[in-house]
Amino acid sequence: MTVIMRGKDVANRLREEVIEEVKSLQSEGIKPTAAIVRVGDLSDSVGYERSAVNVLKKANLEVETFYFPEETPETQFLSEFEKINNNTSIHGILLLRPLPDHIDIEKVKMIIDPAKDIDGMSPYNIGKVLEPQENDFVPCTPAAVMQTLRHYEIDLQGKDVAVVGHSLVVGRPLSMLLASEDATVSLCHIHTKDMKGICQNADIIVTATGAIGLITGDHVKEGAVVVDVGTTYDENGKLHGDVRFDEVEGKAAYLTPVPGGIGAVTTTILAERVVIAAKKQMHSKDARFSEVR
Amino acid sequence: MTVIMRGKDVANRLREEVIEEVKSLQSEGIKPTAAIVRVGDLSDSVGYERSAVNVLKKANLEVETFYFPEETPETQFLSEFEKINNNTSIHGILLLRPLPDHIDIEKVKMIIDPAKDIDGMSPYNIGKVLEPQENDFVPCTPAAVMQTLRHYEIDLQGKDVAVVGHSLVVGRPLSMLLASEDATVSLCHIHTKDMKGICQNADIIVTATGAIGLITGDHVKEGAVVVDVGTTYDENGKLHGDVRFDEVEGKAAYLTPVPGGIGAVTTTILAERVVIAAKKQMHSKDARFSEVR
Repeated sequence: MTVIMRGKDVANRLREEVIEEVKSLQSEGIKPTAAIVRVGDLSDSVGYERSAVNVLKKANLEVETFYFPEETPETQFLSEFEKINNNTSIHGILLLRPLPDHIDIEKVKMIIDPAKDIDGMSPYNIGKVLEPQENDFVPCTPAAVMQTLRHYEIDLQGKDVAVVGHSLVVGRPLSMLLASEDATVSLCHIHTKDMKGICQNADIIVTATGAIGLITGDHVKEGAVVVDVGTTYDENGKLHGDVRFDEVEGKAAYLTPVPGGIGAVTTTILAERVVIAAKKQMHSKDARFSEVR
Repeated sequence: MTVIMRGKDVANRLREEVIEEVKSLQSEGIKPTAAIVRVGDLSDSVGYERSAVNVLKKANLEVETFYFPEETPETQFLSEFEKINNNTSIHGILLLRPLPDHIDIEKVKMIIDPAKDIDGMSPYNIGKVLEPQENDFVPCTPAAVMQTLRHYEIDLQGKDVAVVGHSLVVGRPLSMLLASEDATVSLCHIHTKDMKGICQNADIIVTATGAIGLITGDHVKEGAVVVDVGTTYDENGKLHGDVRFDEVEGKAAYLTPVPGGIGAVTTTILAERVVIAAKKQMHSKDARFSEVR
């Protein structure tokens, strides 16, 4: 029998913890507040903004949204962004991506205060994936995978893990998070000679490629744990993962569905981080170095 | 026949390139300068300092050494370190490690200007291992491994690479550098179930564990590339690598010796970076953001 790992269950538990923390911070006079910053009207970011606002508010967090027209010049945007960054009543910042081409995302990554960077885009926070500590703001989707594995008490030490897809946002940082828990990680991708062989040997498969149905029943060892991070829409607007769910269900011990898997956890991680950010900044006026000074 | 990959050959070529660059910078009135900072008299750091000074000077770089007694209080050291960091005539900084226990290395990592951090200790630079660009200051030893593989024109794309040892200074960052060149990396360590099996399948083995003789002839596939990053002294003061050289020679296509392998490349990487740092800072007064503003 396959246990279906539902993101909603992971997210609900996490949200309850966040709500408790918000209550406790409010009793100290602090209102944990997130800023959501959007430039332009790309449908992807509009949709993500709506869902992020929804999740943050359900966790009783304050949300301020900042909108800049598509044509905002780079210097003006950066200067406005710095104001948001320096605003002490804002604890966490989510910048929606992609940005328009004329605004260099690398500049924003260097400016954003690592202590407010709940989405894990600052190089400071990305570097933390090599030696993650409990309250680090490592990239969100890999963090959601780790949170899901923890929720289902999946042991990682010494386990053979195939990570399929070596993207910057998922595969690479995730492989480091898994290695730091002493899993044996094989990071596969489009150039890998024998991806199927590596998967067949794996105790845990995490796939994040965007290739619909890439992972078949034949890739999966009996009793393995399969986490599907893929989210791809087909021509009919239907959402698919990387895994052929019907082939893997019954064979795997644990399996995430798409939709209803990791995606639901990611935004709740953002909510948790607003609370962590508020705590980090509580006793410090200079948030940038609040951890070290 | 096994090609012995000699660090000296890699380092010599690199040093010649550095000397050319130094000449060109000097003609523009810039003297590329390294600061070497040491606290206390641990024999490891004293020895490393001597060898680093030697290599830097042989590349015609200026070297300023800063020494602080073991008992220097943390606040005093940090304030002195900030002065070195802000000194515009110093382009690259090497802080010798370990520091005494009462000085928190994490604080120094947050203070050091990423553009001067030739040893790659700032979280900014560590984060760059996930998406390395040509002149990034990723950690030095992994960079030396990559430089050596490049020197011997070892193709990485699609190759199965076993990285043995998941330390923060070598194994983890190296696995990211290799993945960014599209190698299929399996990161093994003490908890790995079948390290030998993973090595036997590997086109390239890089080992960095400090376990003398861990990698035997039986671990190595005929024609594989074997890079030995281990450097461990036995009770008689003799230096050993992780690889049983005599068993692997003749079987591997390429093999690094210990001593005389990667170690010789690492310090020359530092020299190269002083030049890169000087160039990065040439047109900027605010070195910290010289890359982005």
